[in-house]
Amino acid sequence: MQIYNRAQIAEKVRLDHAALEAVEAGFAALGRGEVEMPPILSMNIAENNGEVDVKTAHIHGWPRFAIKISPGFFDNPALGLPSLNGLMLLFSAKTGLVDAVLFDEGYLTDIRTALAGAVAAKYLAREAATTVAVIGAGLQAELQVAALRLVRDIQAVHVHARDPLKAQQYAAQMQARHGLPVTVHASAAAACAAADIVVTTTPAREPVLHWHDLPRGVHVTAMGSDNPHKQELEPAILAGADVLVVDRLSQSRALGELHHAPDLAREVLELGALVVSGRSARSRDDQITVCDLTGTGVQDTAIANYAARLLEGA
Amino acid sequence: MQIYNRAQIAEKVRLDHAALEAVEAGFAALGRGEVEMPPILSMNIAENNGEVDVKTAHIHGWPRFAIKISPGFFDNPALGLPSLNGLMLLFSAKTGLVDAVLFDEGYLTDIRTALAGAVAAKYLAREAATTVAVIGAGLQAELQVAALRLVRDIQAVHVHARDPLKAQQYAAQMQARHGLPVTVHASAAAACAAADIVVTTTPAREPVLHWHDLPRGVHVTAMGSDNPHKQELEPAILAGADVLVVDRLSQSRALGELHHAPDLAREVLELGALVVSGRSARSRDDQITVCDLTGTGVQDTAIANYAARLLEGA
Repeated sequence: MQIYNRAQIAEKVRLDHAALEAVEAGFAALGRGEVEMPPILSMNIAENNGEVDVKTAHIHGWPRFAIKISPGFFDNPALGLPSLNGLMLLFSAKTGLVDAVLFDEGYLTDIRTALAGAVAAKYLAREAATTVAVIGAGLQAELQVAALRLVRDIQAVHVHARDPLKAQQYAAQMQARHGLPVTVHASAAAACAAADIVVTTTPAREPVLHWHDLPRGVHVTAMGSDNPHKQELEPAILAGADVLVVDRLSQSRALGELHHAPDLAREVLELGALVVSGRSARSRDDQITVCDLTGTGVQDTAIANYAARLLEGA
Repeated sequence: MQIYNRAQIAEKVRLDHAALEAVEAGFAALGRGEVEMPPILSMNIAENNGEVDVKTAHIHGWPRFAIKISPGFFDNPALGLPSLNGLMLLFSAKTGLVDAVLFDEGYLTDIRTALAGAVAAKYLAREAATTVAVIGAGLQAELQVAALRLVRDIQAVHVHARDPLKAQQYAAQMQARHGLPVTVHASAAAACAAADIVVTTTPAREPVLHWHDLPRGVHVTAMGSDNPHKQELEPAILAGADVLVVDRLSQSRALGELHHAPDLAREVLELGALVVSGRSARSRDDQITVCDLTGTGVQDTAIANYAARLLEGA
């Protein structure tokens, strides 16, 4: 059994085309019905403003499956610790023995979450998309844009965040680290006005994006909502979109944007089905497409297998 | 973060009164409603005759919670490997950081499972119980009897197992290791005829114990069933018992004996409530009492905390 720490993992696993391919392969397997993926195990530790999620999936035929444990303790910053943490364990799918422990402290989750946004944009955003609007200014605000560059020629970023200071810091960081010009906006509507792709990456409990904010032809990825209390999109967006996609129907209904639109009567596709089709789900450039991501165990099993292969030098 | 292996853990954690107290404290907390315990995460890996369960619980006020991962791969013996395996991770309930990894390979599960049987007998079996009948001849057939000795003065064992050779081996082992006389029987009914306590510890998918097998005054602990396909008790036993107890109602209904008696209309107590009451649930010596154990996350958090305290020399 091998044990790897965050530094070892981060040295090997980057936001690159190989990692994108790994996550996309996970979604493809999901789309082909080749994945065993039980509901997320979730526990609150209310007295300490904490929660822990456990996700897993097995892709039939793959030699190893991952179990990921993600604690989120939101009073940690006051203690000088990050809120999010965690590890992934890789088990032999033949014997159930632990093969590797990836003490990634949430790094692989950050990567596979950003790459899911890239997969969504690959099959949904206009080919010629160059401008991204980001709502939120946290770590995923950076990583989602970095991942989008793997699938579209991103040239400019617009950002809106509740905290204007954080939006300014984000702008400076994106310029410095990624050489991308970022414009800070006072509202989501202003940030989205000229966007080809919008990414919402907030812990919002009320919609941060409204139907009238969206220009024609835009693709929206909502990646913030991952529990029943969180919501980023006004339900009118789900109803109005020309194409509506989620990573996993059961999860979006329980924890994602669909949870807030129980009466929605329309076609909803799964991202895996799009990947399997191999084609864009967009038939015209002026369509509005939406993808809700809640985060799936198959992404974890895909990225953990990929990381282990790199770490083992295979 | 500390990492401990099975040998280190097994040297410290034994079937003794201190360990019993730890598991009983877990049930007491459950009985007082002080436990957060989400449903078990369970995944099948059908192509390799495998499954993996993840259990967890947090006891309010306790400094650490455990997450236990239990793979069961039933083709392993042909590869010279044990079927059951696994590990427990202990997390700080304040920060969510991993505190310790217990690579116990299922050892702590064996111990806390046996001790749950002892807790059940403590509150349900007759004080004067001396004779145990065991149905099944696996590891728990040994450990359950060893654990019962912590709460009752066990003098004799009767065993019935599907495989008579295994029953003979079990008898020899119990004599050698525990100095207990064991009689092998050709039927469950014969094994139970003179028993004060009956323990079923099989992977049976059809009842191995019937109402007419049970003498008056007996206490029955059924610990085999932990998935919807498994069943050890004829539903008439659940209906006929004077006192019926389960470790957790939701689990017994989903995975345990109650799953096979959906129309049962009677009082069913939880073991934690008995522990909190501090008294036997038996009001007369001739009553028949039954306890169904499915295995709970709170036992894992209790035994893992206890193990870590011993290992840390606290």
